[in-house]
Amino acid sequence: MGIKEEIVEIAKKAKRVSRYLANLSSDKKNRTLEQMALGLEQNAHRIKKENTKDVEEAREKGLSSALIDRLTLNDKRIAALSASLRKIASLEDPIGKIESMWKRPNGLLVGKMIVPLGVIGIIYESRPNVTVDAAGLCFKAGNAVILRGGSEAIRSNCTLVDILTEALEKTGVPPDSIQLIRTTSREAVLQMLKMDKYIDVIIPRGGESLIRTVAENSTIPVIKHYKGVCHIFVDREVDLDMAENICFNAKVQRPGVCNAMETLLVDKAIAESFLPGMIQRFREAKVEIRGDEKVRQIVPDVKPATEEDWFCEYLDLILSVRVVEGLEEAIEHINFYGSHHSDAIITSNYLKAKKFCREVDSAAVYVNASTRFTDGGEFGMGAEIGISTQKLHARGPMGVKELTSYKFIILGEGQIRK
Amino acid sequence: MGIKEEIVEIAKKAKRVSRYLANLSSDKKNRTLEQMALGLEQNAHRIKKENTKDVEEAREKGLSSALIDRLTLNDKRIAALSASLRKIASLEDPIGKIESMWKRPNGLLVGKMIVPLGVIGIIYESRPNVTVDAAGLCFKAGNAVILRGGSEAIRSNCTLVDILTEALEKTGVPPDSIQLIRTTSREAVLQMLKMDKYIDVIIPRGGESLIRTVAENSTIPVIKHYKGVCHIFVDREVDLDMAENICFNAKVQRPGVCNAMETLLVDKAIAESFLPGMIQRFREAKVEIRGDEKVRQIVPDVKPATEEDWFCEYLDLILSVRVVEGLEEAIEHINFYGSHHSDAIITSNYLKAKKFCREVDSAAVYVNASTRFTDGGEFGMGAEIGISTQKLHARGPMGVKELTSYKFIILGEGQIRK
Repeated sequence: MGIKEEIVEIAKKAKRVSRYLANLSSDKKNRTLEQMALGLEQNAHRIKKENTKDVEEAREKGLSSALIDRLTLNDKRIAALSASLRKIASLEDPIGKIESMWKRPNGLLVGKMIVPLGVIGIIYESRPNVTVDAAGLCFKAGNAVILRGGSEAIRSNCTLVDILTEALEKTGVPPDSIQLIRTTSREAVLQMLKMDKYIDVIIPRGGESLIRTVAENSTIPVIKHYKGVCHIFVDREVDLDMAENICFNAKVQRPGVCNAMETLLVDKAIAESFLPGMIQRFREAKVEIRGDEKVRQIVPDVKPATEEDWFCEYLDLILSVRVVEGLEEAIEHINFYGSHHSDAIITSNYLKAKKFCREVDSAAVYVNASTRFTDGGEFGMGAEIGISTQKLHARGPMGVKELTSYKFIILGEGQIRK
Repeated sequence: MGIKEEIVEIAKKAKRVSRYLANLSSDKKNRTLEQMALGLEQNAHRIKKENTKDVEEAREKGLSSALIDRLTLNDKRIAALSASLRKIASLEDPIGKIESMWKRPNGLLVGKMIVPLGVIGIIYESRPNVTVDAAGLCFKAGNAVILRGGSEAIRSNCTLVDILTEALEKTGVPPDSIQLIRTTSREAVLQMLKMDKYIDVIIPRGGESLIRTVAENSTIPVIKHYKGVCHIFVDREVDLDMAENICFNAKVQRPGVCNAMETLLVDKAIAESFLPGMIQRFREAKVEIRGDEKVRQIVPDVKPATEEDWFCEYLDLILSVRVVEGLEEAIEHINFYGSHHSDAIITSNYLKAKKFCREVDSAAVYVNASTRFTDGGEFGMGAEIGISTQKLHARGPMGVKELTSYKFIILGEGQIRK
């Protein structure tokens, strides 16, 4: 069987099983998730053995230590995967729910029933934990899932999916509910992206280039975010200590993630009192500062920022800083240079906070808090499958509910249209 | 200026005005909609004059009488357009609403604010009333709209948009909020479909070939439905009179629309008692029947249905009829041959009704009512911009709410991530 036939076969199986999954009871789904969690725990040795082979090969190939770290599964990480599945089991099951039915003048009852999307394709890079999290979330929302992980993690992913499907079999759920594409060829991905007849949505997770490749080649709708160029605007009416703590946290606490701050915008009225101390604190934490002319007038040894800096997601200990005239210019900057991910205002002025919330066109808009909270868990959604910076279907962190659609249910007793 | 530059200019203007529109008060939007309604009434003569030229040209070109009917604007239809705008003004404005905010353990308040999609492109065929309805709905939901109607209606559409933008000017709203592509070249559409930097979503309205062209050429997300192959399944446990009335209504009341029945599925246990009378009644209404073998055993002079018939949207007085073993086979048939639009079961059995609702994978699933009710107005959504048969973002009739997105608003008092 060629790669194309193999992918078509996988996609057809997923489609076929999706009707069954749409009607699975919450009880059975939750029991199965518990069985998966148990399976991972009981097979920790088997997982580590295969994972070690992936890690060794990655070392031989000279892959970066950051990548090797993401690739590695140890006891603690395996326990975290089980915990994540149990957490997903504990979440409310939205499927089949009809929040309200309204009555029409002719007596028809009309309501929206939450239903699964159907078949979800997940394309991701080296982190094998995505395999388990994505499988668990898609399953809870009643979807069949087709997983395609990075080639570096192929042995780990095969083992994890074997263990998950063994758990499915134990509770009598068809194993096609969770499928992994086991060939590592690039052709398989391109083929998968054309399966619009069987796959309802593709969610890519990884770097910008992976996501662009997926978006450009897919005939299936894609839910994505390219990058997080997050801003904090420090207004003139502000508690300077709070502003400094929030900015420091947003840049330094974990600089390599999409909700970390990349650009700091400072109201000119407080630039002289705020910037020297703030920049000093950043420098002590080894953050490189790139500033505009006005910043450099206040702190002269700052490196100049170029036009590209304002568009840049550093994912590193680098920060671009700009002095703005005030709120209006800050909003203009954010909407023009930003990536519509997460942006914050630090202010004690009610009207400015309200205007910022209304006018900044981003998935998450903050008042007086760190942008680092943009995360399904932190928002109280239980778990997330990714973050969307698009406006259709789902925006911001996506949990179980965002992996669903709805249909109208209409109950009558013989009504006909006049 | 070439066509490309012209379209880019229109798209940029729309994007620019969209931030303004997102923040327009409900009062001002409603006053403007009233102004538009008045404008149409006061300029009825001007509209009819230009519309007559379109109609005359269509006649000279020998276009079908159905098309000429759709193209024609008379006093009654102009009054209906004004009424539609006033209806849209009366609908609730969802923009800026936060339905609830939940409190996290760290004190953060998190909620979802409803926001406009941004810029919406509408591509449609000969009906000039779409110009007004789409402009009104997009405006109410705070979106800028770019309209592209059929070339047959170009004079009518230009006049209608002139009148609408005159109304915008009267209430001080930028006229770029509602723009029409005034060149009739096909290149303009293809260019429009590549403006993903400025246009957030494309909604095509028209026949299947228009919609396929749009979907295949667009780099912008498209919300669409290709066709409506709607089914009614008449179960063995049924009030035969009610079943007959519903089936007759769903096929005959208006056969040329997407929510009309195209295939009738009959439980074998009642086929002999139900089909002869039903088919007789259809024939009296000039409906051509195409049946499977079992139908033809019961009513011998029925034309045989081919495999293609089961996939076919006739939009005409033609009906395919099949005898099925029971509920399970009916659901299989609907999910396989159908277009996931609107499907009904006629039954007095509670469990079968529940199973049908749960397992039929369509935008609207009916129990004991005609499929003809799938419509934004009939569902109580006030007005509709179209019907979606896809699962992402919006499914079924789309009203004002479906032209919106959301963003997370997070209110803190200095929270940082630990």
